[in-house]
This record gives sequence, C-alpha cells and structure tokens, in this order.
Amino acid sequence: MRVWSVFQSDPIFSPPKIPMNTEEEKRLTAKQLVNFLFSGLFDGIHDMCYREKTLYLMAINEATEMFNPNLSIKFALGISLFSNALLCLGTERHLPYYYDVWGGKILSCLAITELAHGSDTKRLKTTATYDHSTQEFIINTPGIEAAKCWVGNLGKQCTHALLFAQLVCSGSCHGLHGFIVPIRDPKTLIPYENLTVGDIGEKSGLHGIDNGYIMFHNYRIPKKNLLNKTGDVNDDGEYETEFSDPQRILGAALESLSAGRVAIMQESCNSISKAVVISVRYAAQRCQFSDSNGIELPIIEYQTHQWRLFPYVAAAYAIKSFVQKFSDQYISCVVQSQDGQMDVDQTSLMVSGVHAIVCCSKSLITWTCRDAIQESREACGGHGFHKAARLGDLRNNFDPRVTFEGDNTVLLQQTMNWLLRCTSVNEDYYSFFPLTCIKYLQNSKQILGRRFNGNRLEHVICHSFISQTYEWLVCWLVKATCERIDVLKTQEDDKFKIRNFSQVFRGRTLALAFAESNILMYFWDHCNTCDDELAFVLKKLYYLYGLWSLYKHIALLYQGGFSSSSSLSELISEGILVLCSELKPEVVSLVDAIAPPDFILDSALGASDGKVRYKWHVHVQ
Amino acid sequence: MRVWSVFQSDPIFSPPKIPMNTEEEKRLTAKQLVNFLFSGLFDGIHDMCYREKTLYLMAINEATEMFNPNLSIKFALGISLFSNALLCLGTERHLPYYYDVWGGKILSCLAITELAHGSDTKRLKTTATYDHSTQEFIINTPGIEAAKCWVGNLGKQCTHALLFAQLVCSGSCHGLHGFIVPIRDPKTLIPYENLTVGDIGEKSGLHGIDNGYIMFHNYRIPKKNLLNKTGDVNDDGEYETEFSDPQRILGAALESLSAGRVAIMQESCNSISKAVVISVRYAAQRCQFSDSNGIELPIIEYQTHQWRLFPYVAAAYAIKSFVQKFSDQYISCVVQSQDGQMDVDQTSLMVSGVHAIVCCSKSLITWTCRDAIQESREACGGHGFHKAARLGDLRNNFDPRVTFEGDNTVLLQQTMNWLLRCTSVNEDYYSFFPLTCIKYLQNSKQILGRRFNGNRLEHVICHSFISQTYEWLVCWLVKATCERIDVLKTQEDDKFKIRNFSQVFRGRTLALAFAESNILMYFWDHCNTCDDELAFVLKKLYYLYGLWSLYKHIALLYQGGFSSSSSLSELISEGILVLCSELKPEVVSLVDAIAPPDFILDSALGASDGKVRYKWHVHVQ
Repeated sequence: MRVWSVFQSDPIFSPPKIPMNTEEEKRLTAKQLVNFLFSGLFDGIHDMCYREKTLYLMAINEATEMFNPNLSIKFALGISLFSNALLCLGTERHLPYYYDVWGGKILSCLAITELAHGSDTKRLKTTATYDHSTQEFIINTPGIEAAKCWVGNLGKQCTHALLFAQLVCSGSCHGLHGFIVPIRDPKTLIPYENLTVGDIGEKSGLHGIDNGYIMFHNYRIPKKNLLNKTGDVNDDGEYETEFSDPQRILGAALESLSAGRVAIMQESCNSISKAVVISVRYAAQRCQFSDSNGIELPIIEYQTHQWRLFPYVAAAYAIKSFVQKFSDQYISCVVQSQDGQMDVDQTSLMVSGVHAIVCCSKSLITWTCRDAIQESREACGGHGFHKAARLGDLRNNFDPRVTFEGDNTVLLQQTMNWLLRCTSVNEDYYSFFPLTCIKYLQNSKQILGRRFNGNRLEHVICHSFISQTYEWLVCWLVKATCERIDVLKTQEDDKFKIRNFSQVFRGRTLALAFAESNILMYFWDHCNTCDDELAFVLKKLYYLYGLWSLYKHIALLYQGGFSSSSSLSELISEGILVLCSELKPEVVSLVDAIAPPDFILDSALGASDGKVRYKWHVHVQ
Repeated sequence: MRVWSVFQSDPIFSPPKIPMNTEEEKRLTAKQLVNFLFSGLFDGIHDMCYREKTLYLMAINEATEMFNPNLSIKFALGISLFSNALLCLGTERHLPYYYDVWGGKILSCLAITELAHGSDTKRLKTTATYDHSTQEFIINTPGIEAAKCWVGNLGKQCTHALLFAQLVCSGSCHGLHGFIVPIRDPKTLIPYENLTVGDIGEKSGLHGIDNGYIMFHNYRIPKKNLLNKTGDVNDDGEYETEFSDPQRILGAALESLSAGRVAIMQESCNSISKAVVISVRYAAQRCQFSDSNGIELPIIEYQTHQWRLFPYVAAAYAIKSFVQKFSDQYISCVVQSQDGQMDVDQTSLMVSGVHAIVCCSKSLITWTCRDAIQESREACGGHGFHKAARLGDLRNNFDPRVTFEGDNTVLLQQTMNWLLRCTSVNEDYYSFFPLTCIKYLQNSKQILGRRFNGNRLEHVICHSFISQTYEWLVCWLVKATCERIDVLKTQEDDKFKIRNFSQVFRGRTLALAFAESNILMYFWDHCNTCDDELAFVLKKLYYLYGLWSLYKHIALLYQGGFSSSSSLSELISEGILVLCSELKPEVVSLVDAIAPPDFILDSALGASDGKVRYKWHVHVQ
C-alpha cells in the first residue's frame, strides 16, 4: 500500500528516539501533517467520484491511524472532514476553502462541543446573530459554559473553524447551522481580535493533538460564511429554508453524523488486531513454569491464557468482517440517497436504521477493543507495561473513542429507541436495508416460544444454536423493555424519565445484544463465502465469539425461561474451552494473517519469526 | 496528618506546571525523595517497635501513594522495603547499610525479576559463586535472558542492589539468597566496572521511576554481603544452614512475601476512592439533557449512571473495611510468629492461609480498582480524558499493580490450591486464623443442599441471602474444581497440566468468589460495629456490593442447581437497581466522607462545593 512507503521514506514519520513532552509531540504532529498532505497521496483526490474518494480516504485513514493516531486525527479534523462538510453543507461560494485546505493554505477545526454540553447538542449556546446593516453574522459566547472546547487543532494551529452555532435572525433562533470562521492569520498563526482562544492542556493520550477552547466576543464574519445548503438569509435579511428536497438534507445528515462513527469502527478493527497480535505472539514464545518433566511451557499452552486472549482474536475477525461489509453498504446508501434513487420514506427509514446500527456497533466494538487492549497488556505481564510493547499508547490513544463521536451510553439509547419503534413498522419495510437485519422481529411470538433442550456440545457449537438463541434474546429484550416501560407508565408521566428507567438490564442490554447478533450474522455470511479450508477455521472463530458473547447474557436466558436446565450454562462454558483448545494451533498463524505490515510492529514485543525482539535490548551494550 | 503538611509546605512536591518528559519526571522524583527523607517524618522511626513502625510506614505509604505514586514507590524500593529486608534476611553485620539508607547516604533497589523469568522465581539464573580463596562471591549473568530487569531505581539512581541470586558453593547450588551488591559510586553515581547497567526506557506510567536492567560480568563482592540469617558460608568455605528455628524463617518469608501485596491492597483502597469521588462529584453537578418540562438533570439522576458508579462506591467501602482489619491481623500474626508464640504447625498454617487470602484479595481488589478507574473515566465523558481529571494518570500509574508483586492470574492459583488443600485439613484447625474464614467448608454437604425459593426483593436484599449464597457458591466451586481434576486425572498424568486445565470457570473463579465472600464477611462485621445511622447506609452498600458481585456468578448458580427459577436473576438485578436508587441521596455525602484531603483533588474535575473547578479555566484570560 502506497501509504506505508510514504511513512517509510520520510524520517519525519519515524517514532521519536528521545522522550518528548506533550508540547513537542504537538509540534511534531503538525510537521508530519504538512509532509503527509504533500506526499502525493492526495494528488488525484478531486477527480474521484464520491464512492471512490470515500473508500480511498477511509483506507488511508485506517492505515494512518494504525501507524500514528495523532496524525490521522489531525488530518481528519483539519482537512478531510472539513472539506467533506463543506461539500455537504455548503454551496459553490465555499469552494475556495475546499481548495485552500487541500492546498495546505489553511487548516481547520470542527467546533461543536461546548464546555457544558456535548451529547445534548440542542443546548449549545453559541449564537450567530445576523446584522442586516453590515451583512455580517455576530458570533457570541454567552458565558464560560458555552465556550467551545475539546476542539482538536484549535489549541495552537488551526486558521479556520467550522463552527456550529444557533443562527439568530430577525429576533428568531433557527437552530444550529455551520459557519466558516477565521481564527488565526494563516501567515503568522496569531489569533484575530475579539477571540479568547487557547490550548486546553494535557490529556490522557493523543498528545499530538492541540485540543483547544474558544470564546467569541461579538466577533463578526461575513454573511457568505454561512454554510447555506439547508437554509440561508435572503437579501431582505430574512431566514429562508426550502424543504422541497428533504432526502438530500437527510442524506447529508446521515453522512455527517455517521461517517465519523464508521471511521471509528474501521480504526477499532485495526486496534483490536494490533493488541491481539502483540499478546498472542508474545504468548507463543514466552515460557514460564514447567510441567512435571521440567519442560518449560509457552504461556499460550495455559488454558487461562487461551481463554483470556482467543475470544478477542475471534472478535477481531468477527468485527472486521462486519465493518468491511457494512461500510460498503453505508457508502452505497449515501450514494443512492444523493442520486435521488430513494423516495422520502425510504431515505428516512434507511437513515434512521443505519444510524441505529452504527450507534450500537460503535459502542460494542469500541468497548470490546478497549477490553482486548487491556487484556493483552495484562497477558504480556510486566513487559506489557513497557512503552515498546505499544499497548499503553494503544490504550491511551484508543480510549477517547468510547466517549467521542457520541458517548457510548447515549448512543445505545438511540438503538434501543429504533428497535422499539421497529416493532410497529409496516411489514413491507422489513425487506428494505437495513431493516433486513431485524426481519426476525416479525416472528417474535414464535421465537419466544423456543426452549433449549440440548445436552451435548454439538448442540451449542453450531450456527443454529447461536443465531436462534440470539434471536430469542433480542426478541425477549424487546418484550421485556416494553413491559418495563408499560409498568413505568403507570407510575410516571414523563416520557424522558420512563426511558431512562428502562435502560439497565433492559434497553441498554438490548442494544448491545442486537449489535452482537448483527455482527455474528455478517460474520457467518462471510464465513460462507470463503473456501472450505479457511471457512473451517473461521467458523470456529464464529462459534467462539458467539458462545463467549452469549455467556455474558446467561442470566437473561434463565430469567426469560429460555432454559431452566443446568446444561445450558455447562455446555456454553465447556464449548468456549473446547474451541479455545482446538483453535490453539491456528491462532498463531491467524494473528500473522491479520497483522499490519511488519515495520509497524517493529518495536512490539513479539515478532513474526517467533523470537523476542525487545526493542530495549539496544540499550544493553 | 503530618505527611500532608510536608507535601503542602515544600514546593518541590507541587505538581509540575509545565509538561515534562519522562527523563524530567525521573529527576523530579529523585529530588522529591531527598526532601521527603529529610522532612522529619522518619526521625523517630528507629525507636519504634515492629508493630508501631509497620503501621506508621504503612500509613505514610498510603498517603504518599495517593498524592504521588512515583514517590511512594521510589521510597519503598529505595529505602523502606530494603531496610525491612535487611532486618528480615540479614544479621548484625548488615546494620551499617540500614543506617546508611535511612541517612540518605545510599539508595537501593530490589533486583529479583529477570528478563525471561518473573513469576517463576525458581528459574532465575543469576549466580553468586563463592570463591574461598578470596572470600568473595562472584556474581554472574549467564545470558541476556538472565539480565535483571524492570528493577525500580536501578536505571539511573541506585547505589546498591538487594540482589537475589542462586548461591553456588563447592559446586552445589543452594537456591536463591539475598546479597547486597554495590552498583554505583554514591558520590558520582558512576557505575562500577564489570557491570552493564542502564534504564529500560519509557513505560506506560510511573514515569518518575527509573526502572533498569543489569548484567553482571564475574563481578566480585565480599562474602559478608550475603544476607545470612537463613544460611551462610562457614570459615571452611562450606554452605551451612540451621533449621533449628523454622518458624522464624517462615515468619520472615511471610513478611517479605505478603507485605508488598498488603501495601498494594491499601493503596488500592485509596485509588478506588479517588476514582469514585471524582466521578460521583462530577455526576452530581454535570447536567445533560432535560426532562419533558425542559429541566436539565444532573447525570447522577440517570439509572444507567447510578448503576455504573454506585457499585464501585460500595466496593470502595467493602474493600476498605476488609483491608483495614486484615492488615491489622496480618501484623499481629507476624509479631506472634516473631515472638515465638506459635508452634511450627500453627505458623505454617497461618503463613499459608494468610498468603492465600492475600493472593486472591490482591487480585480481586486490583481488578476492581482498575475497572472502577476506567468506569469513572468514561462516566466523566470527554472531560474524563483531560489530565486535570486525574483519571488517566490514576489508570496508568495503577495499572502495573495487576501484574507486579505476583501476576494476578498466577496468584489466584495459589488461593485455589490452598482452598482445595483445606478440605482435607484437621477439623480443629478451623478455629485458627485465618482458617476461621472458611470454617463453613466443614458443612459443605449441608450447604450444597441449599436452594433458592425467594420471590420477593427482601429475600435477596438481606445478609442471610448474600452470605448463604456465597457459601453455597464457594462450596460448589470447590466440589466442581475437584470433580474437574478427577476427570482430568483419568486422561493425564502430569499434575501440573491437570491444575492448569481446571482453572477457567473453576479454580480461578473459586479463588475470586472466595475473595468476594471474605471481603463481604469482613464488611458485614464492620457494619455491625457502627452506630445505627451509619450502619443503615453501610448495610445498603453491603447489599449492593454483594448482589452486584453475585450477579456475575449467576450462570454458576443456575448451573449448580442453586435455583432453576427465573426469579433468582430477576430479583438480584432488580435489587441492584432498587439499592442504587435508594442510595442516591447518600452517595454524594459518602464520597465526601471517603475523599482524601481537598488539596489532593484540587485539580480534579469536581469539587466538594458542588461547583465545577476545571483547572484549565486558568488558561482562559
């Protein structure tokens, strides 16, 4: 892949040889960004169609994130997401910014979150009030709690912000709109007057990103800086919007809402792979303790170690196959909606469905990845704590993903809402993507009648058990959540409170269980497209990921009456151990197959030749 | 407490105002150590008796660790543990080192772990071969895999190592012994010849500690540097050991093995408290989303948020009450064994029992604390990722505890072994501490006959349900583990392998379930010593921690036939939610009660006055 050669050929991208403080890391990342932008990777980008361009940028993002998450984020915020948003929300008059940002003349940031409000975007308080006398918007921050903050690139380096503020015109507020707001002189990087802007200081990771805050003190920008695709101020100084083409608005919303989360899922695939590659390779060559004959065993031979790591190897495969296919479907949806191939109803159904699936999948995947990284770190023992093991940096740089682009806990509620709404949708719609994923909800009554009567391992280590049990679980959780809501309705009028008190053990679990079942469905389909030899191993990974995920829900399987026999728990747990043991010979070669190019793991603890390459050996002279 | 005023009065202890790299952090910690040692805190230390001195040093360690974990670890490795080990393993001839280290003339490190072996200490390969002709030991490192590594203080600053090496004399190896080995000239800190010594480089946390590696190239030290309490080389050059006083050896072993883990448990109490104090205070004042009347709610009002955090508040209390009482019992045991108040059998029973309880408790507590920190970080949303929230540093500095002083996974096996051995111990011994903790194993048969038939919340929110269910669970897991071992015996001769393949869902879970039940037992006893008003709240925390912990084992409760009714899972989960909701008004005041002094949390996100004090507000001018 061309991006690797860029990183390999320019020493600016090499990991620093001496310890750096966070200020130095920020400067380094800024320099890297310039070389990255002018590396030639993006030369043909403006001639590509939407699909081609998106896939190309996604691939580059994945590769870059794997190598240097600071750089990929800096690039996304400063260039690719900004230029994307311009095309989505702006019109022809904004095209110069598009070319300037790709030409390295300006650098952007996306200013949405405020100090007091992140998830609840409706409460954002920054205003952009139209002054017809000067044809300007006056941007103002009403108080410290409305300071834009956490904005990546804003701390020290951006020249322009894509600002989201409440548009006020003729005394009325028309909701959040996007504006292009100059922040710093592109030549000197000195901030303009009437702004209070700076860096928020040190964080737990992503030290190369200059996250910043800003307060606007009646700061004026030209009227034309409003991104006016969905609404504008006319020559009379009145706000106007045309709803004649709503699917385009919806499509735009889908694009800007979901794209970031899809990217996070793609990045997570690589993060989980990196983590398990490091820990499994280490386990294959690290020996500790000996059997009764005095022969030292590689720690991968230990049951506990297999059980700790192999389910994450399985998860890495399951997630990867889901994300690849789903990303593709997602892009097709955007293209279809942009091309006007869907009617309003279809677009609306598609947008809400894709959003719901992205919400629960992003949550499940980032949490799984978080846990895989920590388990890998611990499975490498003390050595896992060394910087050269890369697991500490991986953890700290990965960590924000569980709360950014939507806090996972908040996102899960969106999926729950969608699933409950879908129970009353027109039957015909179930043949329409992505409602195809929950077609089985139609047969809920029949599914809830299922009972487990197995008594042998092959009754659980099979596709039908896993898929049917998950169908039962999702249907039961839909029913149980609805019942909980009904009970709450007799005690409480406030819909908001009712929803909040039907989350734990109910709506929240429903969203996660649905995400698991959906990923498993995609993974199974993928297994069946592979040749027999590969499918044989992949299916074992499918069973392992399926049983391991189901084991977390056993309480509900008993609680809902899916089984009252001890054999359910016994067989699932036994199945997990048997699969781990059977997979042992495969896993080492599997992790090599999913490993990113060698040089990325150069400094990782384990290496593909099975020998330890402790980077810090070089200190020993 | 006097230690706070030391930290407050000397600016060297203030958190650095500008970003530092890891080299700078190491230098700062070294300077802090000097001021700490000469702060006057340790002036009377040599006149204290063992009990008084140990409690005093433990208290100082706890406070220091809370404030600055780098300093507490540097002090422990460099001074307190070293001087302790000298008294334990050395004799009068080593006293000068004792006074030198307390006098700041020398600084030590504890060199045990080698590159290829940590947990398996029997395989350590560094040798100390006695040369009778010169009355010296020749220390040698046979290969890179035997390089001592990860040794704190060794990287740059220590002058002496307390080295553990295989003592070879007259051609025979007599096992690991402790030696005092000069490493650097105390005046210049230049290493002596025939040593390859250096810093292992950057880590994921504890950046203030200079962890190092060392290889010895036939490096000679005087014979008298052998710590000779348990064995020595006589004037004829022969190795001698006297086993006439074995309980003293055992007592010494107990002291040196368990003391570090007890300290980790004490430190964990503070770490979990810090984490939940930060996240609960934040939740009490952070508002997000509004009810149907448009009133914004503090996020602590949300069911999901309560369920995420309150069990960790309960765990903080449960763990604290266990660790306080158990530490005291532990010190009493050491004193009794040192004073010769126990016979050999009693000492041996006590040593192995205390070791087993420490092993599983250290594992459970550090994992619980790890999870509490991460949940707290996520519960603070994006702001939890800021350095000022302290949760990132807390996570990275706490993290090594799950693998150091015994990898948790390895430690759990020790507890399992002990529990299985105890099933065949003489009945009389059950009245002897710490076997009192598992007295109920005697009634295993009767306990395993218990069944759950409850159908109301009060049947699970009560002491008898929690304690009796845990007794059942521990007894069942003992039985199930033995059965698994018996089955494996029919397939496999190797005892080592049999043990390894009876861990997951069995021995490992047994050790953790026992640790939980034991902590709950201590916590309940503590609740009953408090006045009614306090006990009322503490008991709710007991129920919450109990039910929340039991919920994780529901699969086994069904699998073992403790219940086949859906109400078990239903009532436990409902009980958790009811307790969370009931505890809400209390929790905010509770976290203030466990909060460390205010200035420690100065830069934390939430503050006791209920207002946000984002430290980085100072940037906004």
